[in-house]
Amino acid sequence: MFQKHALHTLIQSALEEDVGTGDITTSSILTGKETGVARAVAKSEIIVAGMDVFKEVFLFVDKRMQFSGCSEDGRLVMRGTSLAEVSGNLGKILTAERVALNFLQRMCGIATFTRQYVEAVRGTGAKILDTRKTVPGLRFLDKYAVTVGGGHNHRFGLYDGVLIKDNHIAAAGGISRALERVRRRISHTLKVEVEAKNLKEVREALRSGADVIMLDNMSVEDMRKAVSLVNGRVPLEASGNVTLANVRQIAETGVDFISIGMLTHSVPAADISLKVR
Amino acid sequence: MFQKHALHTLIQSALEEDVGTGDITTSSILTGKETGVARAVAKSEIIVAGMDVFKEVFLFVDKRMQFSGCSEDGRLVMRGTSLAEVSGNLGKILTAERVALNFLQRMCGIATFTRQYVEAVRGTGAKILDTRKTVPGLRFLDKYAVTVGGGHNHRFGLYDGVLIKDNHIAAAGGISRALERVRRRISHTLKVEVEAKNLKEVREALRSGADVIMLDNMSVEDMRKAVSLVNGRVPLEASGNVTLANVRQIAETGVDFISIGMLTHSVPAADISLKVR
Amino acid sequence: MFQKHALHTLIQSALEEDVGTGDITTSSILTGKETGVARAVAKSEIIVAGMDVFKEVFLFVDKRMQFSGCSEDGRLVMRGTSLAEVSGNLGKILTAERVALNFLQRMCGIATFTRQYVEAVRGTGAKILDTRKTVPGLRFLDKYAVTVGGGHNHRFGLYDGVLIKDNHIAAAGGISRALERVRRRISHTLKVEVEAKNLKEVREALRSGADVIMLDNMSVEDMRKAVSLVNGRVPLEASGNVTLANVRQIAETGVDFISIGMLTHSVPAADISLKVR
Amino acid sequence: MFQKHALHTLIQSALEEDVGTGDITTSSILTGKETGVARAVAKSEIIVAGMDVFKEVFLFVDKRMQFSGCSEDGRLVMRGTSLAEVSGNLGKILTAERVALNFLQRMCGIATFTRQYVEAVRGTGAKILDTRKTVPGLRFLDKYAVTVGGGHNHRFGLYDGVLIKDNHIAAAGGISRALERVRRRISHTLKVEVEAKNLKEVREALRSGADVIMLDNMSVEDMRKAVSLVNGRVPLEASGNVTLANVRQIAETGVDFISIGMLTHSVPAADISLKVR
Amino acid sequence: MFQKHALHTLIQSALEEDVGTGDITTSSILTGKETGVARAVAKSEIIVAGMDVFKEVFLFVDKRMQFSGCSEDGRLVMRGTSLAEVSGNLGKILTAERVALNFLQRMCGIATFTRQYVEAVRGTGAKILDTRKTVPGLRFLDKYAVTVGGGHNHRFGLYDGVLIKDNHIAAAGGISRALERVRRRISHTLKVEVEAKNLKEVREALRSGADVIMLDNMSVEDMRKAVSLVNGRVPLEASGNVTLANVRQIAETGVDFISIGMLTHSVPAADISLKVR
Amino acid sequence: MFQKHALHTLIQSALEEDVGTGDITTSSILTGKETGVARAVAKSEIIVAGMDVFKEVFLFVDKRMQFSGCSEDGRLVMRGTSLAEVSGNLGKILTAERVALNFLQRMCGIATFTRQYVEAVRGTGAKILDTRKTVPGLRFLDKYAVTVGGGHNHRFGLYDGVLIKDNHIAAAGGISRALERVRRRISHTLKVEVEAKNLKEVREALRSGADVIMLDNMSVEDMRKAVSLVNGRVPLEASGNVTLANVRQIAETGVDFISIGMLTHSVPAADISLKVR
Repeated sequence: MFQKHALHTLIQSALEEDVGTGDITTSSILTGKETGVARAVAKSEIIVAGMDVFKEVFLFVDKRMQFSGCSEDGRLVMRGTSLAEVSGNLGKILTAERVALNFLQRMCGIATFTRQYVEAVRGTGAKILDTRKTVPGLRFLDKYAVTVGGGHNHRFGLYDGVLIKDNHIAAAGGISRALERVRRRISHTLKVEVEAKNLKEVREALRSGADVIMLDNMSVEDMRKAVSLVNGRVPLEASGNVTLANVRQIAETGVDFISIGMLTHSVPAADISLKVR
Repeated sequence: MFQKHALHTLIQSALEEDVGTGDITTSSILTGKETGVARAVAKSEIIVAGMDVFKEVFLFVDKRMQFSGCSEDGRLVMRGTSLAEVSGNLGKILTAERVALNFLQRMCGIATFTRQYVEAVRGTGAKILDTRKTVPGLRFLDKYAVTVGGGHNHRFGLYDGVLIKDNHIAAAGGISRALERVRRRISHTLKVEVEAKNLKEVREALRSGADVIMLDNMSVEDMRKAVSLVNGRVPLEASGNVTLANVRQIAETGVDFISIGMLTHSVPAADISLKVR
Repeated sequence: MFQKHALHTLIQSALEEDVGTGDITTSSILTGKETGVARAVAKSEIIVAGMDVFKEVFLFVDKRMQFSGCSEDGRLVMRGTSLAEVSGNLGKILTAERVALNFLQRMCGIATFTRQYVEAVRGTGAKILDTRKTVPGLRFLDKYAVTVGGGHNHRFGLYDGVLIKDNHIAAAGGISRALERVRRRISHTLKVEVEAKNLKEVREALRSGADVIMLDNMSVEDMRKAVSLVNGRVPLEASGNVTLANVRQIAETGVDFISIGMLTHSVPAADISLKVR
Repeated sequence: MFQKHALHTLIQSALEEDVGTGDITTSSILTGKETGVARAVAKSEIIVAGMDVFKEVFLFVDKRMQFSGCSEDGRLVMRGTSLAEVSGNLGKILTAERVALNFLQRMCGIATFTRQYVEAVRGTGAKILDTRKTVPGLRFLDKYAVTVGGGHNHRFGLYDGVLIKDNHIAAAGGISRALERVRRRISHTLKVEVEAKNLKEVREALRSGADVIMLDNMSVEDMRKAVSLVNGRVPLEASGNVTLANVRQIAETGVDFISIGMLTHSVPAADISLKVR
Repeated sequence: MFQKHALHTLIQSALEEDVGTGDITTSSILTGKETGVARAVAKSEIIVAGMDVFKEVFLFVDKRMQFSGCSEDGRLVMRGTSLAEVSGNLGKILTAERVALNFLQRMCGIATFTRQYVEAVRGTGAKILDTRKTVPGLRFLDKYAVTVGGGHNHRFGLYDGVLIKDNHIAAAGGISRALERVRRRISHTLKVEVEAKNLKEVREALRSGADVIMLDNMSVEDMRKAVSLVNGRVPLEASGNVTLANVRQIAETGVDFISIGMLTHSVPAADISLKVR
Repeated sequence: MFQKHALHTLIQSALEEDVGTGDITTSSILTGKETGVARAVAKSEIIVAGMDVFKEVFLFVDKRMQFSGCSEDGRLVMRGTSLAEVSGNLGKILTAERVALNFLQRMCGIATFTRQYVEAVRGTGAKILDTRKTVPGLRFLDKYAVTVGGGHNHRFGLYDGVLIKDNHIAAAGGISRALERVRRRISHTLKVEVEAKNLKEVREALRSGADVIMLDNMSVEDMRKAVSLVNGRVPLEASGNVTLANVRQIAETGVDFISIGMLTHSVPAADISLKVR
């Protein structure tokens, strides 16, 4: 619901940025009466994500646009598949094209990339999480695309989740003091996650009553020990330098969550083109 | 000048997105009086870009922040180099950290990535160009980072440059008609670029008086022929499927510009961490 | 930090609303050179809250305003006490006066009202909570004022806390199903609170793994039974029709939290006047 | 007309404040397909006010919402009366519920409270006025609710009415000087009201040509004398410490207007609940 | 005060409109280090108005700009006079120049134009008024410039003054009914002006208790009769087709106010140039 | 497309400025149920421009407004011609009237004024251009109205066209250096225009490779020499002190463009009235 409004604002600013005072090429050449049909086509294998955003861009430019054959978010499509067809005023299709694709290519890119990690850990019980390493202004879309790819969302920001890091611990004078201070202030509806750099800190976090423990940049070996030490009393999250090459190994240590910044900060755009007929 | 205001708006919305109603961890644990120093450190070899943006984020959160040892944009730094030191209220440093890094890592990423292409064509006379395939809302930062990496900017949007594509040509009924219509309407301060898919279209564009011709997805062989056919009468821009593997070969055909979407749509974030003391 | 920006926006819109195209009385009569000193005085016993907001209003109108003798938030002051002195341009003091007082009187009103409830339950272990029944646009100030009065904050909105109500349960087909669905989707950093209308529902919520249980409109008798039934396994929140007359009795049942809508939806403004010399 | 736009902006910010990045409980549990009907029910005797605002909140969240049985603003309803029924997407009803009620409860509260004062002075000829002591951001709704309750509006802000107070008089060096300065500057479409603290000032204001005189914090005895002194030449407004206990007595002095800050700054919310079926 | 904020918003949007993504000429050619001094010079005889706005534009672009020799608003200056000198960063002076002049030239134009009318009626007792026929978005500046030229302001908008026109009268079924309805609803701080097209309507307006009467498009002869008929009981405003050629004659009929749309809707810009050294 | 959004924002702010908290006259007198028809009538010979803007204002106030008999932009209409009829809610027509006319009168004024210049140069081959001397906030409407009158647009702002002026040349140390720096930085889709004050500078600009040369404030005699000197190699633009009296003479020198600030900075509003039935 509310995100619909946020989306509208975002699309408007993206169009202002790209179209500005007008698409001078199109408005000079076309009469404004031409109609046309454009088809978005996957040029490689992708997980579809962001179809609603793609449509909203065209609707923002001209609310009479019509759509057909739109793939649903989450579907895996092969190279060459048509993702959607938009028909209506040709000039407006041309004007909206780039912005619509910029959103769609990023969102499909994230979902597709996330799916690879999700597949890599299949069967292990570990869940793939995103982080706050998103592109400024696009967090709600980036995080949505992660869930489309099969990942799960970590907290949305600093306001809806507690994560006590080393600097907090140092400032408080220890984990238990930091935990105590947090408990006194935050809403009783929030859990408290504590970052641990080694097994000693895992033990201390456990003892101090952390609800979740993040294993920060630990070796696979130490993660395995942490899992056995904690023994299911609280969930564990692995974090730091996770790649497609090592994610399975990490998952097999028995951690509950694996958070991966690359899902949103280093994602290759999906290759999608718009062909107008 | 004006971009300073645009930057301010962007930073504000990035902080709203991340901090929302407050950094509940930090504000619960810290007293608000602690001070500290944080150092941004490159964890791989990078071209620095976005240092002013990085600083503005901290200043937005607390205008009393102090900086020292800031690298200049465009500098190549080695792994382990300190990029900047920020000192001031510790709680506010922790609150601003992620947003500041999200900007800096993307901008350094783009500059570093661009530089690889620029190096690859060194000595050929070809210039590396960006495209409109930027992240919605960040175009002015993305395009700035490209120039820091040694690339050049194509038009900023649909409003400040003319590019006649196949759909425009089809709608107008030929290249010369499209060109004629555009000339009648646009400001006399703008050039007209025409997209050509093959040598026949290059010839027609040339005959019709195009100021610039884009060679769209042509083979290297055809590009070479186009260069010789045009023979310096107008500049040529190569576009489509450019990679680090083939960019040199393309440059050596003698084209004037090579535009590359990946510079901004599929860029890996630079690896940079913030260490608080 | 970020709330400073939100506050700025709020103050601006409050001044636009009140001052509009100009304070025509003041700007017609005063020359614009007069200076003056104004003193905010408590006209009844109050808990001070919102002093920073009060000051920001004057600073927004003229950043050269000076303050002295400002009471700290949380202080109990007697009738007749001076809360703050503002000195500077007289015309601007007169223009800002009403908006500054409108904020201060509401915030002190909330803190003073909250304190009465906090005092009423002193020694019982129960904490007084606010609700989402705040005035549109002022939630962050309303909730802040509650903490100044000694109360605690419940979730800020629908986005940072989970509360499963009867309609959710009905739609899901039972408490355990509702809980299961929520757990699958929300961030692992959030707890799940479930509303129960009677002891049967308390038992079911407990069995289904609720992290917190809200006793909704239960009799004091039933609350006592619920406390003994739950026996400390999860925290309990009493809610519904709480008044100064019955709050102590509720607290003595042993519940952990008591949430009270009146703290923010039916609060009498504190009586404060601004005397200019 | 224009206020429709202002209302839209206000509702949007109220929903942003409450819903933020999403109603995580509802969106996790409901499928998004459920439909439902909710009924707003008065839990005490109230004057209805704000029905359009209530509906707009639901329509903002989902423009397909349907309404039936809506009470008209100004109607007196008994405890247990249904005020309105909203039907549509169940999840969206649940998401919008709190914000819609927060507006409605405040507006009905103001109208109901105002009506008590209006009833108290019935037959005396005195009109009940509001003040500028409204909640920041809600003035147009607060003032509207006062008229629904039978009260009248004083000026909307500092820009559309002149009220010369003691500080203005002191700065100008007397009432007649202050009046003269104001007349020279303001539009000829505005009247000038002057505040008087005692009978001497009433006489001076009258002599200086005030269009309206405010009797500020005078005793009932003095108000009576002022009425007889002025003898209908200009309207008189009583102001200061008006309560339900003394308002009739004040009205019977023969003053034309009685302005009451409590109507908007200390109003108890009307008790209204939303029952979903 | 508040208008300072409105001005800031206006300047920002004027700069966005003109500078957009950047002053590409200046930023390409200048190094960004050059400093310079620019002088605004009157190229004809003008009344200065808008000096603060002129300065604010430069300060918005660079807050370190320095000013000297600024003429005060209201001063009459001869052709060739220096109005102000701005010194600072040369590139930023060049970027801000056009927007600063666009404001200044319009405001001086209005003040200069208004002054001609004010001079034309000197000694008659009639005051020159503006109207609501201002350029969208600039009303507060347009109206300010009128006062600088010696004119007076009519109401600012539809919200702060009552003017009953023929359509209102027709809808109400007569002047007295219209007046009665208005009195019942509006704040007691507002006067009621009624438009009259002929002497019959003047009589009716007077009889119905209008506070001010507008003589709409009457002949000079009829205006004279209206003045004698009304005989000072209420002020009279002449309106419609006023020019420099006939304004004196109208003033000499004895009307109190003459309102002139041309002051703001057809004003020639003052000729002012900025010379950079 | 995008301009539709910009227009919406502009209309909204124009209505806020004029209507503010409400049209108190209309809302007090009318019941809100009356309907009516209003006709816009030209009171002198004009070129119609801005009909869509006129309609949008009414639609913004009430989207159910109906229109008939609307003249098309560009049409020349005689005195007394009906330009458009709007029918719908009478109160809303009255509320919207002034803002709708303020836009329409300015836009028709510009188109009508421009047409006079276009007629004056008919047959010479010279095109009439606008400048950046537009009213802040209205540039896109002002420039549109110029094209309706038969003129052409110069660059929209500093961002979409290059114009090297004397200060740029001085800072760079000569025309050729300035040109070289610009070419290195700007997009290859832009031309470079250079300002020349005399024939010597024209020669230098030509030699340095300017794409267009502006003849700034030259005598007609010198313009003629410049035309013969340049001999068609680049287009020439005449600028400075152009009036209806001398524009034909300038055009006959053979220049390609004549730019005229007065088209937008000193335009008399078209005389149009709205008659309600």
